[in-house]
Amino acid sequence: MSDYRGYEGSSLEFLKNNQIKIGDSVKILTDITYSGIIMPRYEHSDDQHIVLKLKSGYNVGIEISKIEKIEKEQIIEKTSEQTEEISKIEGLPKILLLSTGGTIASKVDYRTGAVTPVLTAQELNSSVPELSKIANIDAEVLLAEYSENIMPENWLEIANKIKEYEKSDYTGIIVAHGTDTMHYTSSFLSFALAGFPIPIVLVGSQRSSDRASSDAALNLIGATKFITETKTKGVYIVMHQDESDNTIACHIGTRVRKNHTSKRGAFQTIGDYPAFIIAENQIQKNMSKEFYSSNQFEPKINLDTKVALVKYYPGYNPKLLEQIIDSGYKGIIFEGTGLGHVGKVMYDSIKKAHEKGIFLGMTSQCIDGRVRMTVYESGRDLLNLGIIPLENMIPEVALVKAMWTIGNYQNSEEIKKIMLQNIASELSE
Amino acid sequence: MSDYRGYEGSSLEFLKNNQIKIGDSVKILTDITYSGIIMPRYEHSDDQHIVLKLKSGYNVGIEISKIEKIEKEQIIEKTSEQTEEISKIEGLPKILLLSTGGTIASKVDYRTGAVTPVLTAQELNSSVPELSKIANIDAEVLLAEYSENIMPENWLEIANKIKEYEKSDYTGIIVAHGTDTMHYTSSFLSFALAGFPIPIVLVGSQRSSDRASSDAALNLIGATKFITETKTKGVYIVMHQDESDNTIACHIGTRVRKNHTSKRGAFQTIGDYPAFIIAENQIQKNMSKEFYSSNQFEPKINLDTKVALVKYYPGYNPKLLEQIIDSGYKGIIFEGTGLGHVGKVMYDSIKKAHEKGIFLGMTSQCIDGRVRMTVYESGRDLLNLGIIPLENMIPEVALVKAMWTIGNYQNSEEIKKIMLQNIASELSE
Repeated sequence: MSDYRGYEGSSLEFLKNNQIKIGDSVKILTDITYSGIIMPRYEHSDDQHIVLKLKSGYNVGIEISKIEKIEKEQIIEKTSEQTEEISKIEGLPKILLLSTGGTIASKVDYRTGAVTPVLTAQELNSSVPELSKIANIDAEVLLAEYSENIMPENWLEIANKIKEYEKSDYTGIIVAHGTDTMHYTSSFLSFALAGFPIPIVLVGSQRSSDRASSDAALNLIGATKFITETKTKGVYIVMHQDESDNTIACHIGTRVRKNHTSKRGAFQTIGDYPAFIIAENQIQKNMSKEFYSSNQFEPKINLDTKVALVKYYPGYNPKLLEQIIDSGYKGIIFEGTGLGHVGKVMYDSIKKAHEKGIFLGMTSQCIDGRVRMTVYESGRDLLNLGIIPLENMIPEVALVKAMWTIGNYQNSEEIKKIMLQNIASELSE
Repeated sequence: MSDYRGYEGSSLEFLKNNQIKIGDSVKILTDITYSGIIMPRYEHSDDQHIVLKLKSGYNVGIEISKIEKIEKEQIIEKTSEQTEEISKIEGLPKILLLSTGGTIASKVDYRTGAVTPVLTAQELNSSVPELSKIANIDAEVLLAEYSENIMPENWLEIANKIKEYEKSDYTGIIVAHGTDTMHYTSSFLSFALAGFPIPIVLVGSQRSSDRASSDAALNLIGATKFITETKTKGVYIVMHQDESDNTIACHIGTRVRKNHTSKRGAFQTIGDYPAFIIAENQIQKNMSKEFYSSNQFEPKINLDTKVALVKYYPGYNPKLLEQIIDSGYKGIIFEGTGLGHVGKVMYDSIKKAHEKGIFLGMTSQCIDGRVRMTVYESGRDLLNLGIIPLENMIPEVALVKAMWTIGNYQNSEEIKKIMLQNIASELSE
């Protein structure tokens, strides 16, 4: 089955009839002649195309009805020693590319058809030949995980690795990362490495590399241009702005969310324009403040995972909150409704949590806008119960910040103070 | 203190100097002469204005520097028996207005300055004189709660009340409701009253009635126009489209979310245009399908609150999921990452939940877009563990639908079938 993974109907029949399977090197004649490797397909897609990985590293989808001839070519086995070295041009800025996995770093095993996030950073680099004209890129594999499996422990690993390059000659650091939890990782790096002297840019792709429309290359080029041309401190996420290949958005790493499951422009800055837009080789800046509130780099690479995110909804049973309280949690971030409310039914448990010294922060499941707990009775009640309103901090960012704050500060007054202090642009006007 | 609630600085001084307090009837001379009642203020606002409730029911903010003269008028005490009856015009369509509370139905106690959501539906009606020209409105108070305190039991109450009017001569039913959880209530009504023969419209306001910029009147007028002019079956939320007073949006009750804490245009249809737009007295229809998949009205007004919404995040401790499983829950809706993923760390607990016969549904915390669990290894693993991908159902809607489905169907195969069946436009293309 793995010989034809993802192919069905006409395209499956076409491959079988021509005795071609996934991983075969082929030459295809249409009005153009293509040489490349047959790739598996992963999404439910039409059965009219086959996907070919070209030697440039790009994929193309070829309509089977337009194929005049397809023939197998001899497979040239590459050993790992043969990895092509990208030639470096003297004088270009130096960038470090760390790969943690994700779709952007996915590699197809041509024998089994399985996709695993283990493309070496070197391969990632060489798959986008344009990069070598903009910067000299050193590449390193740090992790090989899809981002739903990136854990807080991995955030520490990434931060500690980046910290090593505080005093390097790199102009910036690119972190290739899965998109699912990229904004959680960017938030942690923003707090843990506050003040880091060079830009840190997370970049991913929404389309797996077996698809002709992969956005990986353009996002990588955008990240590289952003670093070399702006040299702006901070932690950013660089991805397509929308479905077009013309515009790349550069988001503040603590003000961004993945707001669509599949679109290329899935990432959005909440409540504002992206910090930078790269369109037709022009970089437009919309960011009016420094990313970090302090220029001093004093890394604090610790965290405590005993923080829970609790989304309130009608019917939420306060017993679930009690279970969190009784499990030794040190912080709870509420995703309340509207301006920062939860039902009265929660009050007794919240009181108990406060008495236990648990940090209680309020954000809103509206996601956009500011919590304001002085407007209504419910909000004032909750303030009296000891809940701290976290302004317009995005719930996920508040969660990560609380893990980081509680991991680095002990005193409860200090934790409150830090949670409300704007450290890495997590609060905005 | 309650005499000046919300006033500070210059405006407080101004009131004190003139021996005027909240609840006083006053005549104010600027370039216009105003008569009305001094209202408290609730949000941190400037100290340059006082707020006056005019006899029309509208509030105005008056800049103190422009006030030439302010004097107390005699307070005319109204007893409850004296409630003004709105005159009805024969031949106009009839609408039932049910009030459940919320900002839209908030009333200030002029003695204490406290706001409570107990404005009678009759008063709500008479505070917007335009309504009586469009429809004859019968008003009834059902509840008096801010919506963070509206519980699933209240959904049943509202649905049962509406059910009574299946065979009435009303053209439609308006439910005045707090905005915080309005989309949860609209979802429940959509499922429980599927096929209801006349439109059900939930309407609220984002600005409390002590603010000059209250959006309550226009939203009520929009809801009334929508009902009388379109007579379209279904459950809708009618609110401002944006900050402008010119455009009212009418959202499908199962495809909408409160996406901003305070803006008037806080509600947004996810992934599509609103079903109807009312602009400058024109109603534009964007909805291409019937709201209900079946025209038959067979109310199913039951629910089971043993359903939890679990938002996955890096660091989520599977022990919290185990606690839910061990507490006798019958359904769990996951807000996974991206296309519908959770970390491998969750697999063992999910397996356990599945073995216990708990319904497991997957939605995405991206909110927009469709879950697709066949694309990546993680998704395929979760499918194998028994998780049901819920297409593009909004997480909150999936939660409410699971409560409703489990409350009305016992058989687990039937529950799965109903959860994936489009009943009230909760799934879209």
